[in-house]
Amino acid sequence: MSSKQQHHSQRILAAVKQALDKGRLVENLARQQNEGPHRTVVENLVHRQQLAHLDKILKQLHPADTAWVIENLSPEDRQLVWRLQAAQRGGDILLELSDSVAAQLIGASDEQLLMNAITQLDPDDLAYLAEWLPPHLLQSRQAELTHDEQAWMRQSMQFSHDSVGGLMVKEMVVIDEQSTLQQVLDELRLRQNLPTQSDKLPVINRRGILVGVLPWQALVLSDPTQQVREVMAREVVSFSPDEPATQAARAFERYNLISAPVVNSRGRPIGRLTVDTIMDFVRDDISEDALNAAGMTGEEDLFGPVWNSARNRWLWLSLSLLTAFAASRVIGLFEQTIAQFVALAALMPIVAAIGGNTGNQTTTLVVRGLALAHINDTNRNQLIRKEMTLSLLNGVVWGGIVGLFALLFYHNWALAGIIALSMQLTLFLAAALGLAVPLTLQSLDRDPALGAGVLVTAITDSLGFFIFLGLASWLLVN
Amino acid sequence: MSSKQQHHSQRILAAVKQALDKGRLVENLARQQNEGPHRTVVENLVHRQQLAHLDKILKQLHPADTAWVIENLSPEDRQLVWRLQAAQRGGDILLELSDSVAAQLIGASDEQLLMNAITQLDPDDLAYLAEWLPPHLLQSRQAELTHDEQAWMRQSMQFSHDSVGGLMVKEMVVIDEQSTLQQVLDELRLRQNLPTQSDKLPVINRRGILVGVLPWQALVLSDPTQQVREVMAREVVSFSPDEPATQAARAFERYNLISAPVVNSRGRPIGRLTVDTIMDFVRDDISEDALNAAGMTGEEDLFGPVWNSARNRWLWLSLSLLTAFAASRVIGLFEQTIAQFVALAALMPIVAAIGGNTGNQTTTLVVRGLALAHINDTNRNQLIRKEMTLSLLNGVVWGGIVGLFALLFYHNWALAGIIALSMQLTLFLAAALGLAVPLTLQSLDRDPALGAGVLVTAITDSLGFFIFLGLASWLLVN
Repeated sequence: MSSKQQHHSQRILAAVKQALDKGRLVENLARQQNEGPHRTVVENLVHRQQLAHLDKILKQLHPADTAWVIENLSPEDRQLVWRLQAAQRGGDILLELSDSVAAQLIGASDEQLLMNAITQLDPDDLAYLAEWLPPHLLQSRQAELTHDEQAWMRQSMQFSHDSVGGLMVKEMVVIDEQSTLQQVLDELRLRQNLPTQSDKLPVINRRGILVGVLPWQALVLSDPTQQVREVMAREVVSFSPDEPATQAARAFERYNLISAPVVNSRGRPIGRLTVDTIMDFVRDDISEDALNAAGMTGEEDLFGPVWNSARNRWLWLSLSLLTAFAASRVIGLFEQTIAQFVALAALMPIVAAIGGNTGNQTTTLVVRGLALAHINDTNRNQLIRKEMTLSLLNGVVWGGIVGLFALLFYHNWALAGIIALSMQLTLFLAAALGLAVPLTLQSLDRDPALGAGVLVTAITDSLGFFIFLGLASWLLVN
Repeated sequence: MSSKQQHHSQRILAAVKQALDKGRLVENLARQQNEGPHRTVVENLVHRQQLAHLDKILKQLHPADTAWVIENLSPEDRQLVWRLQAAQRGGDILLELSDSVAAQLIGASDEQLLMNAITQLDPDDLAYLAEWLPPHLLQSRQAELTHDEQAWMRQSMQFSHDSVGGLMVKEMVVIDEQSTLQQVLDELRLRQNLPTQSDKLPVINRRGILVGVLPWQALVLSDPTQQVREVMAREVVSFSPDEPATQAARAFERYNLISAPVVNSRGRPIGRLTVDTIMDFVRDDISEDALNAAGMTGEEDLFGPVWNSARNRWLWLSLSLLTAFAASRVIGLFEQTIAQFVALAALMPIVAAIGGNTGNQTTTLVVRGLALAHINDTNRNQLIRKEMTLSLLNGVVWGGIVGLFALLFYHNWALAGIIALSMQLTLFLAAALGLAVPLTLQSLDRDPALGAGVLVTAITDSLGFFIFLGLASWLLVN
């Protein structure tokens, strides 16, 4: 959007909020001034006027913008705006909302409203929303679909949200390689509305097998008497429905795709992947990794109830607490030593912090390299050698600096030597863990993005304390 | 790519490595067995044969795949593959490489090779690579361009890489609203090759101002005698070149765009944004944030020299070290107290860890909300109220648990009470910081993603120690 349009968005939001506030104010006044049977009449009149005003504003918006406005409102106002818009284009709005807000609004809507909202949806969108919709509502809506559409929905609901099958759409025009371009053009003109987000049409042979694609541009620019197979592109990037979506996303990025056919095991086209879906997937996928790294389990509604947020964060906080308890017990082992050399208490967090930090850097890099398929059997050892060399270098540099710091404040050469040596050891082990944990998770077919960071930090923390205090007990106390 | 194609990629990589290894082996044998003038002759013969074999493999690959193969090789092998391919399609390969690897290969190439590589590039791609190319090489290549292309390059190099102007491409076909569709079709057939990644053509009026867009489908499906202005879409999402790229990316995601015109301040189309560029931008942008969060300054070459990696990570490690030193000095203030109650040393990391964790969760959420434009003037206070409420709840729950832990291990009610109270205070302040730091950075027009996490963790750490040890000194010692 141009900056004008950006300001427009903000202005719309302000206008919506104003209309809502005015509605509430008038309603409250009406409530205070009127008692008895009059109350509801006047109140309703004024209220309706405000709602009509609000409806007029909202009607001008793209469903994606209405969804954005809804995301930005408080839970009560969300309900109000949603109820106003649901009957006419609720389905389109639901598709654009974040998961948590969509589930919230569906949960709070009555059946008639929801039924109206979802009548406009095609089978693809219905399948996408299926998990949030009340089952009997979904069934009665499904019953209205054609046989073909019902079969499609059953099929696509089998695939997980992060597989190609879960992201593909049904909308597709398949053409025969033996048609002439003129025949294709005539056929398309008959259909009138064509699938969105398509830059090419899949081409099949007599047996229904995908043999090529016909770009729009070839269709427009070639001689209409030519056959499709004379002008089509034979090199096709296609996907099978059970491939992971991350792999498809990588191919879309690598080959700059806009759409691509999905084929079944016999090579017949059964659906399409489009770049808009892939882009949403990439955004969600990466941003979920970032949230996980910060210790949240999923997308969180910024303005949702406190309890939901608390639940979202507590799993990871309890893991972090367990880690802290473990570290605390490790320190507990050395309380005798600390009582003799209190300086140890002040110095020990440094070793643990830097250890955790470098371990985390290595983990992040390895997780990212695995995600981008930059790390594989042939170069793994090279990476390991490099990271271990770097950790030795880091150990010398940072161990030296920390040793100087200790010397400066405590004038104790032994203490300085011990902390420098501890840093060296901890950084080396932190790098080893930072490599081993994600690589092991990957080889066990687990998601290395999930958990590697926590595990590495957890172990490095306790390890840092143990090495430093252990060395000190051994060398200082005797 | 289908799983077949995925395996294909891996097989190609293996074949390339095998060819490289065989080449090296034969070369070494030749070196050992031959002395004097024969040596180089035999060596060269064998070497050339291997290179021809390698070249044959590489030629079959898409430039993006060649780039992928290069990323996966060791620095020396990268050079070899690059030199083989540079003359024919070096430019296309450079465009697909990550920044650090591209810079590396350019730095190590001789001028003739580079000049050959960049002769195939159009002005858009040349502008993209401009900052890595040796200046005089860039100039001599620029001198070969048309006047029009030179002007374009000067213009687009003025814009930063993360503005719309920096991402836009020149390639564009603009049509007149008064032409008939037949005229447009004739004109396009004359041009033969059309801009890639386009789903619509920008339409201008007599004065050259953008007035609409003509989707390909409308061009194909409408009656060719109609005028463009009768069938064009009048609602256009367009951008100005100085808008931030993040805003454009948001619009592409929200409205499912494939391409969009960029217009100057007078409303004339000057270029186009396409979804492939936007997708690359989104990927880089988010992944840079993730790397920053883990304390790396930018994209790092997994297999590059150790020194480069060290430099990439040391800025943040030194910040983290300063933080740790600060925390250490805070603890130093209370050494007297710790000497009396050694249990404090074992318990204090718990307070700091959980404080840092919750502060980090709040920061991540706020940074993400700001990036997605979900947080604004009208709902900021609501968010603040919610996070502060959550922090109080967290304080009661986690403070209680930690208190029990302390009681269990040290059988000291006062100590348990002090640590519970410290947790409550620290979590409250951590949430406040987690809100205040990114919101302040944003209002100062700084990037909240950069630095907010480090700052919050740094302050919360020392704060946690200070609160716990301070309360203990005050309540336990007296």
